[in-house]
Amino acid sequence: MIVEMKTGAGKEAVDTVVERARSLGFDVQLNLGTDKTVVAILGGNTGQLSTDVFAVLPEVESVTRIMKPYKLASREFRERDSIVSIDGVEVGGKRVVVMAGPCAVESEEQLMEAAKAVKKAGASILRGGAFKPRTSPFSFQGLEEAGLELLAKAREKLGLPVVTEVVDPHEVDLVAGSADILQVGSRNMQNYALLTEVGKSHRPTVLKRGFSCTITEWLTAADYVLAEGNDKVILCERGIRTFEDSTRFSLDISAIPVLKRSSHLPVIVDPSHAAGHYALVPAIARAAIAAGADGLLIEVHPNPEEALVDGLQSLTPTHFTSLMDELRVVASSVGRYI
Amino acid sequence: MIVEMKTGAGKEAVDTVVERARSLGFDVQLNLGTDKTVVAILGGNTGQLSTDVFAVLPEVESVTRIMKPYKLASREFRERDSIVSIDGVEVGGKRVVVMAGPCAVESEEQLMEAAKAVKKAGASILRGGAFKPRTSPFSFQGLEEAGLELLAKAREKLGLPVVTEVVDPHEVDLVAGSADILQVGSRNMQNYALLTEVGKSHRPTVLKRGFSCTITEWLTAADYVLAEGNDKVILCERGIRTFEDSTRFSLDISAIPVLKRSSHLPVIVDPSHAAGHYALVPAIARAAIAAGADGLLIEVHPNPEEALVDGLQSLTPTHFTSLMDELRVVASSVGRYI
Amino acid sequence: MIVEMKTGAGKEAVDTVVERARSLGFDVQLNLGTDKTVVAILGGNTGQLSTDVFAVLPEVESVTRIMKPYKLASREFRERDSIVSIDGVEVGGKRVVVMAGPCAVESEEQLMEAAKAVKKAGASILRGGAFKPRTSPFSFQGLEEAGLELLAKAREKLGLPVVTEVVDPHEVDLVAGSADILQVGSRNMQNYALLTEVGKSHRPTVLKRGFSCTITEWLTAADYVLAEGNDKVILCERGIRTFEDSTRFSLDISAIPVLKRSSHLPVIVDPSHAAGHYALVPAIARAAIAAGADGLLIEVHPNPEEALVDGLQSLTPTHFTSLMDELRVVASSVGRYI
Amino acid sequence: MIVEMKTGAGKEAVDTVVERARSLGFDVQLNLGTDKTVVAILGGNTGQLSTDVFAVLPEVESVTRIMKPYKLASREFRERDSIVSIDGVEVGGKRVVVMAGPCAVESEEQLMEAAKAVKKAGASILRGGAFKPRTSPFSFQGLEEAGLELLAKAREKLGLPVVTEVVDPHEVDLVAGSADILQVGSRNMQNYALLTEVGKSHRPTVLKRGFSCTITEWLTAADYVLAEGNDKVILCERGIRTFEDSTRFSLDISAIPVLKRSSHLPVIVDPSHAAGHYALVPAIARAAIAAGADGLLIEVHPNPEEALVDGLQSLTPTHFTSLMDELRVVASSVGRYI
Repeated sequence: MIVEMKTGAGKEAVDTVVERARSLGFDVQLNLGTDKTVVAILGGNTGQLSTDVFAVLPEVESVTRIMKPYKLASREFRERDSIVSIDGVEVGGKRVVVMAGPCAVESEEQLMEAAKAVKKAGASILRGGAFKPRTSPFSFQGLEEAGLELLAKAREKLGLPVVTEVVDPHEVDLVAGSADILQVGSRNMQNYALLTEVGKSHRPTVLKRGFSCTITEWLTAADYVLAEGNDKVILCERGIRTFEDSTRFSLDISAIPVLKRSSHLPVIVDPSHAAGHYALVPAIARAAIAAGADGLLIEVHPNPEEALVDGLQSLTPTHFTSLMDELRVVASSVGRYI
Repeated sequence: MIVEMKTGAGKEAVDTVVERARSLGFDVQLNLGTDKTVVAILGGNTGQLSTDVFAVLPEVESVTRIMKPYKLASREFRERDSIVSIDGVEVGGKRVVVMAGPCAVESEEQLMEAAKAVKKAGASILRGGAFKPRTSPFSFQGLEEAGLELLAKAREKLGLPVVTEVVDPHEVDLVAGSADILQVGSRNMQNYALLTEVGKSHRPTVLKRGFSCTITEWLTAADYVLAEGNDKVILCERGIRTFEDSTRFSLDISAIPVLKRSSHLPVIVDPSHAAGHYALVPAIARAAIAAGADGLLIEVHPNPEEALVDGLQSLTPTHFTSLMDELRVVASSVGRYI
Repeated sequence: MIVEMKTGAGKEAVDTVVERARSLGFDVQLNLGTDKTVVAILGGNTGQLSTDVFAVLPEVESVTRIMKPYKLASREFRERDSIVSIDGVEVGGKRVVVMAGPCAVESEEQLMEAAKAVKKAGASILRGGAFKPRTSPFSFQGLEEAGLELLAKAREKLGLPVVTEVVDPHEVDLVAGSADILQVGSRNMQNYALLTEVGKSHRPTVLKRGFSCTITEWLTAADYVLAEGNDKVILCERGIRTFEDSTRFSLDISAIPVLKRSSHLPVIVDPSHAAGHYALVPAIARAAIAAGADGLLIEVHPNPEEALVDGLQSLTPTHFTSLMDELRVVASSVGRYI
Repeated sequence: MIVEMKTGAGKEAVDTVVERARSLGFDVQLNLGTDKTVVAILGGNTGQLSTDVFAVLPEVESVTRIMKPYKLASREFRERDSIVSIDGVEVGGKRVVVMAGPCAVESEEQLMEAAKAVKKAGASILRGGAFKPRTSPFSFQGLEEAGLELLAKAREKLGLPVVTEVVDPHEVDLVAGSADILQVGSRNMQNYALLTEVGKSHRPTVLKRGFSCTITEWLTAADYVLAEGNDKVILCERGIRTFEDSTRFSLDISAIPVLKRSSHLPVIVDPSHAAGHYALVPAIARAAIAAGADGLLIEVHPNPEEALVDGLQSLTPTHFTSLMDELRVVASSVGRYI
């Protein structure tokens, strides 16, 4: 941590900074420039320290963090890529793992039809929402427990592992009873009560990026899950909020190489929620694989025109099948397979 | 809702749109331009309908929502300003209500000292965090239940109503046992499980704006609380995330007049979290009152240099007292008082 | 254009809207809902009309544009893909065109070394800045005319067409004397005096996206160039400004499929300026091709450690050569070649 | 400037950084932590140095700027507030200076009527656009030279100084012939060719903030004008681009106290362009004064319903007159007058 004193700051003010740092157990080194005194605070845990601790002291101009605030999710903490294994499906290895299915579970017919189609086209994991966090209280909120039962049924029948969202910290066990992978949605990325419970469950967890959270905040949120001893975290980039209005969100494609440098966790991409429109999904999905994503989370509905939620961003089974053919070629062009 | 067909769309495609709308109980009117057919879908509940329902149909170019998705929070639903009354303190009336106190409750001494100071300076409500949602799991998370007890003690001793944050839907009753006003924080604005429980509690609730949520999303989140029969919602603007990095967040001052036109709910402003720096708080606080805010939520700490959380944005009691003097004059310049 | 009247708006107010629309030569159709009157304004030129014309009238609640404000750049205006041809190099066809070279021309040695390297690695066009728009007046501003002469020399020696930036409307002829393609930079995307002169020059033009401009504003800016009879416009996505701070800008990968649907103009991508760091360039470049980009604009410097401008985002010739090998495989996976 | 080496970086890499810094004339101090070596580069001109100079060197993890990149606009360069005087009207002193008039000059009648009304209501400066930078080439572009003549006429008749926009570096003299204050618009804030010419003119200049530029970039742009010896720069906050869509832009109210700390230049606010709607202008104008703005730039049109440009955000003379009454009271509440 670097503390820049105001121009002309007196010895007393500098001493206050030095003492505060030492009292917290850090090393200190002074840099006496001609115009400025700069105090370097050194030590392995400065990343977890608030900059306010020094910024609030007299005659301090600014405080800059050098160490990152996240720790367990960092590449420095674990040099080798983490691989999350779900029933033999490995996320983070050479294979690009495709998770697909309807946004919301609507009925047994709808779910089974979607599940069969995505399995046939080559998806390895079935997605489907039972608890749906909806912007308006007057919108369809999901089938809830009945939806979980349908997911468990589909898993059993087709032998496809299932990923589904959990929205309440007290429902983690319930959801974990029917799902192989827990999903923490974008709106809950900083719901720390939920992250802690998901951590305690030790279940593989897809942690979606908050749509306005930085990569640093995202990895720090992952630390909440990792800190409970759950190291099966899969990061999912799903678009960030920007001023651009031709898409629902702006997929941050650069997040993929940034995460690969900063973290050991696997990274998947959800092109459906980012785009908000089925016609844009194939280009974004191809780009994600070319950029190095370890997997995709894609919405597929047997009949998007009748979908209760997010129909516009869902692919039909036919469209999804032809997309999978494209994706296989792109995956192979970057040394991977689906 | 306005459905614009693609140029040259055939009669069959238009008919599909018309039938879908009628099947949902809406009126329809066709607009046959020379280049475009535009279908207007009419009825009081189109605001709660997803645009996807039509966007997904063949040969549809775009769908535009005319009605707002929120309902109970809207000025159309309730024309007169709502006033939320807490132990005789009315938020939303002529008085500008100042809520002040430390970011986090740290100890009995700290809380009591802060509470006495803010009361003496003219604050009507005491703020203080017992459960703190922190970005990193390795940061101080608040005193939790012990913090609630200290808040209850301060309330009793000083006769000041208390506002504090609740972060877990299953702790609403616990928190409501010690606090007069529940606060839903920015990171939880779209935590619908929490909103629903807060709604059921029928307690006065400060609903902070998600730092990347639109005003429309915010009012729709308020609908979750209102839909449970809790009409004591106070909106709190606390800064939005933008590219500007000289402040922690960018306070959206225009939100105040926008909300006054769109909603009947009272609006308060938190200049401390927006600014992130005590030196900016006075200017923003004065601006908020001049723009029409019904109250302020301000961080005051007896000794910011020792604060465990957010020391940099906290005012000292002396600084707060002199700010209150300034604010009284500004309030009077817009026909209000503190 | 759709004009929504306020609830309960009187006949007189509706008539005012209707008359205003008819006086401007538009067709009108009334939609009388139970709660709302909605007036549809119809005609081919409503896209160029300001919504304010109606929004300002009495008892109007909102005005929504249906037609896009851009015209000549739109896919509706020209259905087939435009191909911009520069000395036999076609941008917008099956070939992915790579433009590469140093950010700024620094010396004859530096430019020639870079030019030879990028040509050898397979780039078709040489980039290099002579006039550099720099954030600070105290930074290196480019070699200016001397830089143009060096570019002309490199073009002649190596037979590579040259792209370089023009920043002043009165220097368009000067720059066009040495360059095959004019570049309008991100900070000048809405410099209409410059766009008009570039349009009059009838030269192939790379129009970079303003870093905070929507795709709609970008295509409307392209209309300024096209309106002067210059149809050789190449759009260049180079990252947009968001809250994310791990990259200099956030590359908007979705812009590629959005533009391919909305416009007939070719689209290239500049991964160097978006990333701001050489280590991120390869992943973004691969993604751009996979998403359908028609070309790339990449910074290559013989010795990035000595670069006067943007050294951190420049590739070395060795690094660029190996990237080109990767890109050839990705291009082929989407049915294209380099 | 602080250079953080990668964990485990060797002595050779550290030496390279040290030598590069010394070769550029800077002092260097090493901070050898247990995990990290941090190199502090010291000297008065590090603010104008690109971080890339060090970031590109081997084994460097990150480079952080301590000094600001702007210089002449900084409070450190000039401690006392600058006051810009225009024909006896002082911007930056105790008086809050109101500049008002139509967005675009449309006719002699329109301009004279607006000018008389704003003068009568207490405005000190007349605004009006002759050259209008419009998003679409098919929109009204202003009366251009004829507009300048009308402004000169109004100035002469009413004795009101005039502010108007200049968009082309080669038209600075032309515009300066009819206007007392030059305005550089938001889209041209980083048009360095224009800034340089405006600087050379030595005319009072309103420099509007680019709608997506940071305060640091804005002050660095001001340095372009100041570097030419023109110290009569007035900064104008006019709203920044964010995700919020209920207003045209989001006025950054915090920019006012931030600028007052960082710079000596006067700051005015344009509530009309920020809001995009006349009904929001009064609240934002009041807030700006309460936050410490030195002036306002407000659009007033004798008949907004007939305005060719931006009618929706224009006040009528009646509305403006009553706003001025409100503003006088608010100004007095913060120790100023209009």
